[in-house]
Amino acid sequence: QNSNDLKLSVNKGSIKVATEDGHFSFGMGGRVYMDAAAYFDDKTDLGSGSEIRDIRLLMKADLWKKWNAKINIGFANGKVSLKDVWLMYKINKNSFVRAGHFLEPFGIEQTESSKTTKFMHASSTVEAFRPGRNLGFSYATWSEKTFWEAGLFGSDVNNSNKRTDEGYGITSRFVFTPYSKDHIFHVGISGTYRSVDKIEELNGYGYYASYQSESSIKYGSRAATHIEDRKFISAGVEEAKSQIKYGFEMIAAKGPLSIQGEYISAKVNRKSNFEDYSANGFYTQVGWLVKGGNYKYKMKSARLAKPGPGSVELLARYNQTDLNDSDALIMGGKQKDITVGGTWYVNHNVLVKFHFTNVDLDENSLNGEENFNMIQTRLQFSF
Amino acid sequence: QNSNDLKLSVNKGSIKVATEDGHFSFGMGGRVYMDAAAYFDDKTDLGSGSEIRDIRLLMKADLWKKWNAKINIGFANGKVSLKDVWLMYKINKNSFVRAGHFLEPFGIEQTESSKTTKFMHASSTVEAFRPGRNLGFSYATWSEKTFWEAGLFGSDVNNSNKRTDEGYGITSRFVFTPYSKDHIFHVGISGTYRSVDKIEELNGYGYYASYQSESSIKYGSRAATHIEDRKFISAGVEEAKSQIKYGFEMIAAKGPLSIQGEYISAKVNRKSNFEDYSANGFYTQVGWLVKGGNYKYKMKSARLAKPGPGSVELLARYNQTDLNDSDALIMGGKQKDITVGGTWYVNHNVLVKFHFTNVDLDENSLNGEENFNMIQTRLQFSF
Amino acid sequence: QNSNDLKLSVNKGSIKVATEDGHFSFGMGGRVYMDAAAYFDDKTDLGSGSEIRDIRLLMKADLWKKWNAKINIGFANGKVSLKDVWLMYKINKNSFVRAGHFLEPFGIEQTESSKTTKFMHASSTVEAFRPGRNLGFSYATWSEKTFWEAGLFGSDVNNSNKRTDEGYGITSRFVFTPYSKDHIFHVGISGTYRSVDKIEELNGYGYYASYQSESSIKYGSRAATHIEDRKFISAGVEEAKSQIKYGFEMIAAKGPLSIQGEYISAKVNRKSNFEDYSANGFYTQVGWLVKGGNYKYKMKSARLAKPGPGSVELLARYNQTDLNDSDALIMGGKQKDITVGGTWYVNHNVLVKFHFTNVDLDENSLNGEENFNMIQTRLQFSF
Repeated sequence: QNSNDLKLSVNKGSIKVATEDGHFSFGMGGRVYMDAAAYFDDKTDLGSGSEIRDIRLLMKADLWKKWNAKINIGFANGKVSLKDVWLMYKINKNSFVRAGHFLEPFGIEQTESSKTTKFMHASSTVEAFRPGRNLGFSYATWSEKTFWEAGLFGSDVNNSNKRTDEGYGITSRFVFTPYSKDHIFHVGISGTYRSVDKIEELNGYGYYASYQSESSIKYGSRAATHIEDRKFISAGVEEAKSQIKYGFEMIAAKGPLSIQGEYISAKVNRKSNFEDYSANGFYTQVGWLVKGGNYKYKMKSARLAKPGPGSVELLARYNQTDLNDSDALIMGGKQKDITVGGTWYVNHNVLVKFHFTNVDLDENSLNGEENFNMIQTRLQFSF
Repeated sequence: QNSNDLKLSVNKGSIKVATEDGHFSFGMGGRVYMDAAAYFDDKTDLGSGSEIRDIRLLMKADLWKKWNAKINIGFANGKVSLKDVWLMYKINKNSFVRAGHFLEPFGIEQTESSKTTKFMHASSTVEAFRPGRNLGFSYATWSEKTFWEAGLFGSDVNNSNKRTDEGYGITSRFVFTPYSKDHIFHVGISGTYRSVDKIEELNGYGYYASYQSESSIKYGSRAATHIEDRKFISAGVEEAKSQIKYGFEMIAAKGPLSIQGEYISAKVNRKSNFEDYSANGFYTQVGWLVKGGNYKYKMKSARLAKPGPGSVELLARYNQTDLNDSDALIMGGKQKDITVGGTWYVNHNVLVKFHFTNVDLDENSLNGEENFNMIQTRLQFSF
Repeated sequence: QNSNDLKLSVNKGSIKVATEDGHFSFGMGGRVYMDAAAYFDDKTDLGSGSEIRDIRLLMKADLWKKWNAKINIGFANGKVSLKDVWLMYKINKNSFVRAGHFLEPFGIEQTESSKTTKFMHASSTVEAFRPGRNLGFSYATWSEKTFWEAGLFGSDVNNSNKRTDEGYGITSRFVFTPYSKDHIFHVGISGTYRSVDKIEELNGYGYYASYQSESSIKYGSRAATHIEDRKFISAGVEEAKSQIKYGFEMIAAKGPLSIQGEYISAKVNRKSNFEDYSANGFYTQVGWLVKGGNYKYKMKSARLAKPGPGSVELLARYNQTDLNDSDALIMGGKQKDITVGGTWYVNHNVLVKFHFTNVDLDENSLNGEENFNMIQTRLQFSF
């Protein structure tokens, strides 16, 4: 059952150790994003500067032909943050089940590694509404033209509330891709339901008791940046029972041109006497591969593939997120932002991003109506 | 002195790199335990849910034939926790000295990796009284029928008190194993003495000064589970000077049947005018390898070996811990729990555990007398 | 562009995987320092004890012939601490540019890995005034007789202040080494300018607002030890605008004898109405390789090389740091300390250090004038 003929190889700048029969392989690596930002203030005194946005260590293994294991841990800002930590069983070439801590299957940007997202910062819409990574299990299957994944999830292991019953979520994404070769066309729909966690409270004796009590759900987003990390729009919805979100996604590409968009809508069901809360947002982004050939598609993850080494890509994005709901009397603010920029894929391991962004905030935002600009750049390496 | 002929191999699902002469080897890996628990409440509102119970990254090396180094770091719950971090010098085939952060040699369960302990959660007796990992050094030697380890230890590096003199501990375990082949029979005895740390206190000027002052020793345990992490029994012994603990252990196995038990007694020596505090507990557990052959024994660590891949094991445990001492007027509570369950050793890397537990607590426990049940399951992978 | 003929090797006790053409290599490893200290108190009740002073995991890669990447993360005391995290581009054999989180080029001890510094604890002068690691980029070039590095740096990523504009630093080191073979002689000069970070303050509404306000710069050092971690001398300079530091360094060696020294001077520019603050310090240390041949020099980093395996080195250091400035009315204390000790380089991976230190503090120190002694020892391993 043990094999002694292992081969070492370099694949796209990463090291891999594998048995000749392919039943075992091991890999290790890391990634680092180094960011700098200069802000041109309106009302708010924004904090220009630099940071290591993300730094991770990774170990992974293919085991006994059918099993995959991955441990990816983040260390940015002096904190341990569990990222992809999962065990996968490959049912066949086109389907798997997976258990662990991973991204819930909802839309494009939520399910994509930050290593390959086109912009430095996720759209504010996805930042506000994404389910993120949670502990759970999922089933995924794909064919030549379809992709489907569905899962059941508990809580985020990085913020677990240990003394009360956890909430849970059910999430699914379905994608139809009639064209994925010369032309690319992809549409998809996602939906998620999540119940709230119970909340712990101090009882009269000074002990924590887990009364079932009011719970709140929060949506919010930063201003298309992370060095300045305040959330300029944010809505806290009290007396929540559960939330339902759905998303529509679209990708089209022809040659070196691509367009991608997502619309997400969220609704919080609240206790009787309280009006339900609704919010939504969308983004549209276009890409032009000035250098590096044509856009390609990856059916296994149902999105555009990362451009090859040496590519130069120009990008533009319009993004709008509205957290105001006057019926529910919760005015979380509305943000519109436009980003233009580009990415140089120096080689498989190194890339550079450069962005100019204009952010427009309404009167319900953190410091009221304002409009400011910023320049951001990233040097990213991984191996 | 340098060698260039390294061989890569997969051994029991782990990667290993070694020189042909065996003088050097390097390994890396990780482990993840994913747990879920459903509690059936009595008085206390228990928090059902899921968690990543443990996640670790490991690097290890054999160096210059005689030296072993190991670095094992835990990242569960967003915290860094040093586990085995030590340097070992092999005196000969049957003895070593070791310096670093490791488990004090006391009994079976305290010295066993959670990767191989039969139950998801250590017995409440071992949880309450174990010395745990501390920074120190030890000497170990074993022969065909005996095992002996003894060490001197400072403090736990994860909770070090830097401004006052540290306490220290002396700990030793001796095991006699007359039968270790077809039949297995093992008895052992352990003992440990530990002085208290001095305590730091704010002086009148707002600075920390390290007055030698009253010190407390705490014993406590969770309810045979970790997702609900309250300690239902716990005793804080004030005005402590030192503690002495001893333990008796026994293992017997014949074919696919095994029995294992430990008894631990703890005594806290207190300042004159204060009555000494005594507490104790024990567990007995039986195992049946429904599938997977016979139980085997490992002299180097003096305990049962991990069952092989494909094994299915049924288990039962009775555990009782008594933290009440009416003479010392410290009533920490008494816990009795019964667990039945099983483990499926899917392959060298993956295993699944499933437990049903009944917990019975006396009137001195956290929320008074109560009796509740729980179902727990674990998916564990390591490589 | 991918290569499949990787070679594994052990180099100085570390594992390395490289392609035959040398264009790619990968390495991983770790390091651990285990320290113990016994203090002989004067006024202050010092906390004798033990600790894991440093523990790190490392991954590194050479990529596409010209690129080097390094990720080194520390986990001592249960905290994540980013160490060397950088991407380097090799312009040619004698120069590189580097971006990331690394030691600013200032003097000898500040730029040297703690793996190779001769003493367990940096001199109090370097501890008080060193710029440390910061996020930035630098250019370095060296020839047969000169070494020069200069860089621009933002803030320390482990303590980033995200809501206000960061300060920045410009730092450079120049070294001239007329003799580096049989005799070694080296002189150098370093300088650094750093502006202060703006400070965030709570405004009247309970929100953080980033008023530009008074900023403080702190200098301080422990008593040539880390287990007792109080800073016995420390100066906080309020109303600071910027700081300028310069340093002089010298190394000379002949055969098994070496001498090394540094002088550092710091000046804080303050707002009008406030007197500028000045402080300085120096150390001189001598080494004698009782066993292990002659001292060697490393032009690439411009300092003495680590003695080879089996070496035994005797050491002595006199160190003085003066944080008193009566003109500025800031009396931070003055420390003089003498250390004698030795290092046994057991092999490439293991070393042992042993030190005796006398510390003399003036009346402006933490607890006033005092004079105490200590014995310290370290067991260090890395691979």
